[in-house]
Amino acid sequence: MNAAALDLTAALDLTADVVELARALVDIPSESGAEGPLADAVETALAALPHLSVDRVGNSVVARTTLGRPERVIIAGHLDTVPAAANLPARLDGGLLHGLGACDMKGGVAVALRLAATLTAPSARDITYVFYECEEVEGDRNGLHRIAAERPELLAADLAILMEPSGAGVEAGCQGVLSADITVRGARAHTARAWMGVNAAHRAAAVLRLLDEHVPERVVIDGLEYREGLSAVAVRAGVAGNVVPDTCVISLNARFAPSRSAAQAESYVRGLFSAESHENACEYEFEVTEVVPGALPGLDRPAVASLVRFLGAEPRPKLGWTDVARFTELGVPALNFGPGDPALAHTAGEYVPVGQLVECERKLVAWLR
Amino acid sequence: MNAAALDLTAALDLTADVVELARALVDIPSESGAEGPLADAVETALAALPHLSVDRVGNSVVARTTLGRPERVIIAGHLDTVPAAANLPARLDGGLLHGLGACDMKGGVAVALRLAATLTAPSARDITYVFYECEEVEGDRNGLHRIAAERPELLAADLAILMEPSGAGVEAGCQGVLSADITVRGARAHTARAWMGVNAAHRAAAVLRLLDEHVPERVVIDGLEYREGLSAVAVRAGVAGNVVPDTCVISLNARFAPSRSAAQAESYVRGLFSAESHENACEYEFEVTEVVPGALPGLDRPAVASLVRFLGAEPRPKLGWTDVARFTELGVPALNFGPGDPALAHTAGEYVPVGQLVECERKLVAWLR
Repeated sequence: MNAAALDLTAALDLTADVVELARALVDIPSESGAEGPLADAVETALAALPHLSVDRVGNSVVARTTLGRPERVIIAGHLDTVPAAANLPARLDGGLLHGLGACDMKGGVAVALRLAATLTAPSARDITYVFYECEEVEGDRNGLHRIAAERPELLAADLAILMEPSGAGVEAGCQGVLSADITVRGARAHTARAWMGVNAAHRAAAVLRLLDEHVPERVVIDGLEYREGLSAVAVRAGVAGNVVPDTCVISLNARFAPSRSAAQAESYVRGLFSAESHENACEYEFEVTEVVPGALPGLDRPAVASLVRFLGAEPRPKLGWTDVARFTELGVPALNFGPGDPALAHTAGEYVPVGQLVECERKLVAWLR
Repeated sequence: MNAAALDLTAALDLTADVVELARALVDIPSESGAEGPLADAVETALAALPHLSVDRVGNSVVARTTLGRPERVIIAGHLDTVPAAANLPARLDGGLLHGLGACDMKGGVAVALRLAATLTAPSARDITYVFYECEEVEGDRNGLHRIAAERPELLAADLAILMEPSGAGVEAGCQGVLSADITVRGARAHTARAWMGVNAAHRAAAVLRLLDEHVPERVVIDGLEYREGLSAVAVRAGVAGNVVPDTCVISLNARFAPSRSAAQAESYVRGLFSAESHENACEYEFEVTEVVPGALPGLDRPAVASLVRFLGAEPRPKLGWTDVARFTELGVPALNFGPGDPALAHTAGEYVPVGQLVECERKLVAWLR
């Protein structure tokens, strides 16, 4: 590389097309917690545009039109990525842009930056662009969380479009997430005298069997099916090679339909185990470590319905958890609409199709201009 | 401590009584692999006795009488201990000698050293004393294993008394040990789309349930009951908090009666799983990582029967694995007879009762003098 190429990491050219812009974004590393250089580049590029008012909160950047339109739309994307996996720099090949974050979600950020640069006077709605930090890590570091706490007025809007990868289609609402640890207790003994102890790993069979036999529910909301899930994501037992283990911990990850509140989800999952293990209830300890509600699709909200009609896409349910749930909690209806296959998120081979970058930009320009 | 006391770590006084000798042995640290100073002290003390012929193999010491008696008895004990657990130096309190290795098995070593020092001309049997290294670690480092390989003539005998803790009673034979890993396979998926994967931890329920329901056999040999055992000693599954795990490994530790050969034990344990999981057989991988046969009690062997009669103790089955199995493989019938409660072995609070030290010394002197 020459010096000119290296300079690209410090400046973004918003007049470049969306593909070149996405490539440039991928080539500025921004693992969660290290978004500073990318946030600087985004802030600098947006501050140069006279039709936008720009604010910075930590390593998140908010840019707004202030035209006094009757409605306001948020277009949001996170700047951070998961850690690199030998997938930098970006590589364009056969209509696919490969590289860390290409799918999740620098492709979406590129579309949003193109809109910010070109929609100097949107006709019907003011627009708030939110480029935020730390989406891929624990929730209390999340840039949206921090903006909501420090500058809540920046997130006031009638609708939020989160540009998470959704295959350039509309994914509405999202599942909730519950994490819990089930601890099965026993009593240690030397394996040469195993009958003097109680094997916690053996006892855990009852919990794992319940999980194996459990048929998750399919909940239909606004015509969309939210398929629930209940998975053991870790099992840990073991003291030494000749010791009957006295503890077996099963970590659960449940995905629940947005029609359940956090409390309802917790009650539901607890109930599955207390019912099955009624006679052995005291042997288990059930500790919920995290529960985050989902977001209802809200297709009956006027602003959402209008956009869905305009995009002409059949909405699908969002199966993973995204920050649409956070917008919903803030009272802003939200949906996912962005380039890239969500199943490729966090994979070393992630990519975004050039066609979807272009399509997302074209559709949003048509709706907002 | 004064300088004289410190010198005790470099020299052993075999004219001291068995309790003082045991205390001195505890106070010379000899964790497996670091037996050098203790082996030096033992070798030096024994080499000073004109009635013994002394050999050294690594950090093991062998001392023999060579009186041309018609029978030869081995009296053996290992010099090493498990790692310290804030249980040094030795402490004598209320008739109990506490400290690292007091039970397993410096108490037994003290008795053997007292016999070596005082039985200058045993009447009916020559005696081979074996003090060996690395019993507490993997078998190929074991001092007996090395002596058998390098100096097999040193282990020729009609009977071996292994002074492992057996409560000053006779524990005959020993169980065999089989270790194996059962790997249950599945397929990864994001937990938001769990149905696209196969949860290996859920599937492992069938294996753990089988273990939970298994009733181990009780095998009676020479009137002694060998109670078998089949324990999961570890369960490991887990990729990430939002990933359906594709692998669950269950580590097994089986203890089997000495009437089963290693091959029979392996076939028996494999059979438990292949029968139960017949329709899902291909989902499991069963890998035996170690199988060590036990030792038959051999109470019908004349040398063993003679000693048992003389000691007047009702023999019990040995439940753990000990080097009596190694002697049995070498063609030398063997039994466990030593001071200390075997259940205290490897515990931080291990101790040996003074009364059992004295009793073991007294009985063996009476039989051998």
